[in-house]
Amino acid sequence: MNQLIAVIGGDGRYLELIRQLKNLPDTKITLVGFDKLEQGFTELNQIDLEDLDQSKLDVVILPITGTNMDGDIETVFSDKIVNLNKEWFKKMKKSSMVFTGITNDYLSSATSDAGVSLIPLLNRDDVAIYNSIPTAEGAIMMAFEHTDHTIHSSQVIVTGFGRVGNTVANKFSALGAKVSVCARSIRDLARITEMGLNAIPLEKLSDYTDNCDVLINTIPAPIVTEEAIQNLPTNGIIIDLASKPGGTDFDYAKKRGIKAILAKSLPGIVAPRTAGKILADVITQILEEKRESL
Amino acid sequence: MNQLIAVIGGDGRYLELIRQLKNLPDTKITLVGFDKLEQGFTELNQIDLEDLDQSKLDVVILPITGTNMDGDIETVFSDKIVNLNKEWFKKMKKSSMVFTGITNDYLSSATSDAGVSLIPLLNRDDVAIYNSIPTAEGAIMMAFEHTDHTIHSSQVIVTGFGRVGNTVANKFSALGAKVSVCARSIRDLARITEMGLNAIPLEKLSDYTDNCDVLINTIPAPIVTEEAIQNLPTNGIIIDLASKPGGTDFDYAKKRGIKAILAKSLPGIVAPRTAGKILADVITQILEEKRESL
Repeated sequence: MNQLIAVIGGDGRYLELIRQLKNLPDTKITLVGFDKLEQGFTELNQIDLEDLDQSKLDVVILPITGTNMDGDIETVFSDKIVNLNKEWFKKMKKSSMVFTGITNDYLSSATSDAGVSLIPLLNRDDVAIYNSIPTAEGAIMMAFEHTDHTIHSSQVIVTGFGRVGNTVANKFSALGAKVSVCARSIRDLARITEMGLNAIPLEKLSDYTDNCDVLINTIPAPIVTEEAIQNLPTNGIIIDLASKPGGTDFDYAKKRGIKAILAKSLPGIVAPRTAGKILADVITQILEEKRESL
Repeated sequence: MNQLIAVIGGDGRYLELIRQLKNLPDTKITLVGFDKLEQGFTELNQIDLEDLDQSKLDVVILPITGTNMDGDIETVFSDKIVNLNKEWFKKMKKSSMVFTGITNDYLSSATSDAGVSLIPLLNRDDVAIYNSIPTAEGAIMMAFEHTDHTIHSSQVIVTGFGRVGNTVANKFSALGAKVSVCARSIRDLARITEMGLNAIPLEKLSDYTDNCDVLINTIPAPIVTEEAIQNLPTNGIIIDLASKPGGTDFDYAKKRGIKAILAKSLPGIVAPRTAGKILADVITQILEEKRESL
């Protein structure tokens, strides 16, 4: 029995993902939103959304960014607007699965109303940790581009010690930066100290920014406040890795003349093939588990 | 007694260098080749070469690249051609010093004929090792730009285990790459093994390139030959850090469709301020030693 997969939208990462899904046995893949892709997948079925019969699908793969609050999705390789309204989801089979990177209220309720399973891949620890590697490499690339000094010997503060913050702190430290990490829990502060890094309690951040060359935020909350920015040296920069809208007071940074950048989809920019492989590996594994359970 | 220093040409690194030299006591600095610099050093004397009286100078600082074989120097911040012919050097004081990054037959003989001291800074171990840090960070930046995978988990071969090769191998390994280093001496091969890296005898390079993602050459000799390139996978890339013309058969790489890049002045691109500070520190130290010996 063939399984039918539709990939609807996505960016450079999805080319590697599609390449790997093609190798699955007994699988038919349909692409929506890849019509402007040069050197496309000529052997695959590429159609418009209105020609797709979602009632036949076993699996829908949405972009990493999911949908916006109106059901629109990002299609890097198409100029057409692709909208998945709630009715669209309701025509899907109950047994079908919808993969996304992240979800929001719209997507969560649209799929739950339709009775189909939603799998937000970046909620999984394994995907988030693997994905933090290209994210950290992207942060290194941004530090190269936006400073005139080496990462080696520079003073770096990382706010947050979650799956991304931990990796980012490790990588900058490995390159010889003097790394401090800002965290709230005493457990994290102990681990940071054990790693040979400088531990800063989160509420004390602004006491430590006065000699910081690169401030990297990973917490999706207003952490890099006016007070923290005020004390930064003029040539300090802020790289905000938290998901939109980040955790930085960008208006105040601009007023102070401090360069502050909200980084977006670094894995897709710096290492689309690796990032696609991470997604392909976990989707493949989930599909195999499902087949075995049938 | 004032010491008179002329900085003749140079790139972004020299802005930091000049900023630091300005702080030396009893020193007068004249700049040649900085006329197109925005936000220049208004308080310093900026003149054309023909208006410079070299017989009064104690110190001349040339670009890192020195001169070409005709005595022309690189002036990034000027459109004027600056040529230092052999007669020009002969009018310098015998006690004066000429700093450069690297030298060639022309510059070495021009200064020795004139009886002035030439100090090729990059010949010094300390400068070369400090300078290898921004060079290695530049190589990392190039790997980010020219590949679609992470450095983490990628297969990297570094040819050469000198001052640059050692640092480059360290940094890529710190980022999680699987690093092999190619060297000739059994001493180097032992040290490479001790560091937990994979040691490859230089003459066996081509036996090991078949699964190499990034090949980084640091040896200024024809090392990356047709044979070595032949075995590279199609999406492998070559980053050549050796000084012009590098150690890669670029024509053959092009024919095979392998991306091969001769990197140039990476410290000046990726970290001009750090690279300038490295030069300033050593020049300052040499000038102080000279003063003390007087």
